Amino acid sequence: MKFSSKCEACSLSPIRKFHPYVVAAEAAGRRVLHLNIGQPDVETPQAFFDAVRGFRNPVLAYAPAGGVDEYLEAVQGYYQSFGVSLALEDILSTYGGSEALQLTAACILDDGDEVLIPEPFYPNYDTFIGVTGGKIVPIPTTAEEGYRFARREKIEPLITPRTKAIMITNPGNPTGAVLTREEQLLLLEICKEHGLFLVSDEVYREIIYSGEPLSSLLEYEDGAENVIVTDSISKRFSSCGARVGALISRNRHFMELAMKICQGRLCAATLDQIGAAALYRTMTPDYLASVRDEYGRRKDALVEALSKLPGVTHSSPEGAFYVMATLPVDDAEKLQYFLLQEFEDQGETVMYAPGEGFYATPGKGRNEIRIAYVTQPRELTRAIQLLGLGIEAYNRKNGT
Amino acid sequence: MKFSSKCEACSLSPIRKFHPYVVAAEAAGRRVLHLNIGQPDVETPQAFFDAVRGFRNPVLAYAPAGGVDEYLEAVQGYYQSFGVSLALEDILSTYGGSEALQLTAACILDDGDEVLIPEPFYPNYDTFIGVTGGKIVPIPTTAEEGYRFARREKIEPLITPRTKAIMITNPGNPTGAVLTREEQLLLLEICKEHGLFLVSDEVYREIIYSGEPLSSLLEYEDGAENVIVTDSISKRFSSCGARVGALISRNRHFMELAMKICQGRLCAATLDQIGAAALYRTMTPDYLASVRDEYGRRKDALVEALSKLPGVTHSSPEGAFYVMATLPVDDAEKLQYFLLQEFEDQGETVMYAPGEGFYATPGKGRNEIRIAYVTQPRELTRAIQLLGLGIEAYNRKNGT
Repeated sequence: MKFSSKCEACSLSPIRKFHPYVVAAEAAGRRVLHLNIGQPDVETPQAFFDAVRGFRNPVLAYAPAGGVDEYLEAVQGYYQSFGVSLALEDILSTYGGSEALQLTAACILDDGDEVLIPEPFYPNYDTFIGVTGGKIVPIPTTAEEGYRFARREKIEPLITPRTKAIMITNPGNPTGAVLTREEQLLLLEICKEHGLFLVSDEVYREIIYSGEPLSSLLEYEDGAENVIVTDSISKRFSSCGARVGALISRNRHFMELAMKICQGRLCAATLDQIGAAALYRTMTPDYLASVRDEYGRRKDALVEALSKLPGVTHSSPEGAFYVMATLPVDDAEKLQYFLLQEFEDQGETVMYAPGEGFYATPGKGRNEIRIAYVTQPRELTRAIQLLGLGIEAYNRKNGT
Repeated sequence: MKFSSKCEACSLSPIRKFHPYVVAAEAAGRRVLHLNIGQPDVETPQAFFDAVRGFRNPVLAYAPAGGVDEYLEAVQGYYQSFGVSLALEDILSTYGGSEALQLTAACILDDGDEVLIPEPFYPNYDTFIGVTGGKIVPIPTTAEEGYRFARREKIEPLITPRTKAIMITNPGNPTGAVLTREEQLLLLEICKEHGLFLVSDEVYREIIYSGEPLSSLLEYEDGAENVIVTDSISKRFSSCGARVGALISRNRHFMELAMKICQGRLCAATLDQIGAAALYRTMTPDYLASVRDEYGRRKDALVEALSKLPGVTHSSPEGAFYVMATLPVDDAEKLQYFLLQEFEDQGETVMYAPGEGFYATPGKGRNEIRIAYVTQPRELTRAIQLLGLGIEAYNRKNGT
């Protein structure tokens, strides 16, 4: 029996593939400090659980394919709160930001079509695009340039007749880079000129440390046909397990195609949408600011700890909750196996996301890692200390 | 800008596309009796809501990509209860049976690959397969033969080098046909001989009127590599809005490919899986029998009402909760528009799923409809009365 060649070509998640080794390390009595996954420890607002507990219909019925009305209206109201007017039909309810990205890839890509993505990028983009037969063409960036990619001279040489879209995460995962208004307008300009979609994953919108007002590529009326935004309650409201997201575009035909697939899979989960609607309805600027400030404190603690490790360089995030760091080792993936299988300090070890999976260019990112700062400052400091000890032990073992 | 040619070729759901006309009819003050969608009115067991309300973790975190342990164990226990032994790694948690089908199509199909499906079939199969670039090759059946399709002479002539799988719903949606043990073995035999997957959608497993013991294609050890089963809590526990299903196979490589996509989309909803686990844990044979008997009473009421309509013929379901009926009209879809836009009797009208969408062969099913008997007998009887009156009015208007 033969399988899909597209699916065969996809990779296991570089973030999740170490899971069995974590289980083994924990079974052996070691505590693993997690820097690897973007699962915040911030409490989910009680409004979500209250709304879910308050559900009184005796039948848990299908929601409409496009979403529960009160959720769609809540998303509409949220965007309105920072000046973006959306029609309800511009919004589809999805299983997290992930399904919004899957739908986008399925609606715009044919075999061999190309999507320009600044690298390093969120590795699951590779799966979403790979299963459609599409291909990621990386826009190279460097740590030295602060991972800036919105430069005409970086992007235009990569555009071919097969290019369908530019796809970005803003604020950036894993780089923490945040687009300036000029950069946003330049990307939109390039997409309009070349007839490309601009797919903007904006799930980290509120998590910006510069104090700039909230923004979205949906703000621009000119070029609205080109823009597709994916969003989620996961990070904004620390509710990753709810799997409630949104696919938003003013491109009518795109939304019609997406609706075909939405109808096929019937609907997103009813209760979770009701909980998500309550989150948006009860959200206050204070809550969002407190979440952002909390991540800001963690970033500061992490960056301080990292700066003490000899030979380690790292990004200075403007947003989101990740740092890219370059380690003084041959291979960060080998180091990760070492940390889980052979290393411990006072019964503890550490886990991060090796960098190679964040690049499409072979060989790039081999000595880089992504660190998610989603735990308490004290825990972060200890995790970085473990990383430093682990690097020393690994290099000692390898005689370097 | 250009879109995916595969997605362009897909259709809107023939079951859901009349939604805007229903909204309009209801806005005009008419009540629409629904025979169109498989949304049962049976109450969701309280155990689901109790488990969800009892969730006390302050953070609604990601579940593991493959599923919440307690849900996977509950599914394992459920299968064991009728003699099917599964390893936990044979089971992946999915967003309803729908995602299990999407994953299956994505893991086994390349562009131009063929899937043999007895027609009429559940229309969303068309979308799941269409977005991958695969193609449905219908196995023709007839109402006169009771929609039996598991015949070597019907299937083997359709097998080509591009055939990847035979895909069935058992019990059948929309036909209500239930495979005999001999038919199951024959299908497995054919799949083994020709190196095909046998994809079996078994979400209606308990709803069988003949009193036969529960069965699954997972029972057969010989040929286990070929078998992929999709399942869901939606119909079994009247919990369609929970979107919790399962993808089950003993084919290791298939499950590895499916896990890649599962990791990409991170996880299915955490709370809903916890609720689903409680449903399986607290399930009793009495509950399942009472649900089946309830549908049996509805089937009897529906069939009795249908048999009174002149010129209408219909299937005699052995399982699931649908009837296929042939109407004395030129086009059941035109009749549906008429019923929603021009017809009423005492302020009421009726809605069904036109049959054409259940066929891949052009022109077939045009005067057929699918009726879901998921409401009370009295409501079903009235709906069929409305259908009869509507047919008369429609044919009178058209001078036939």
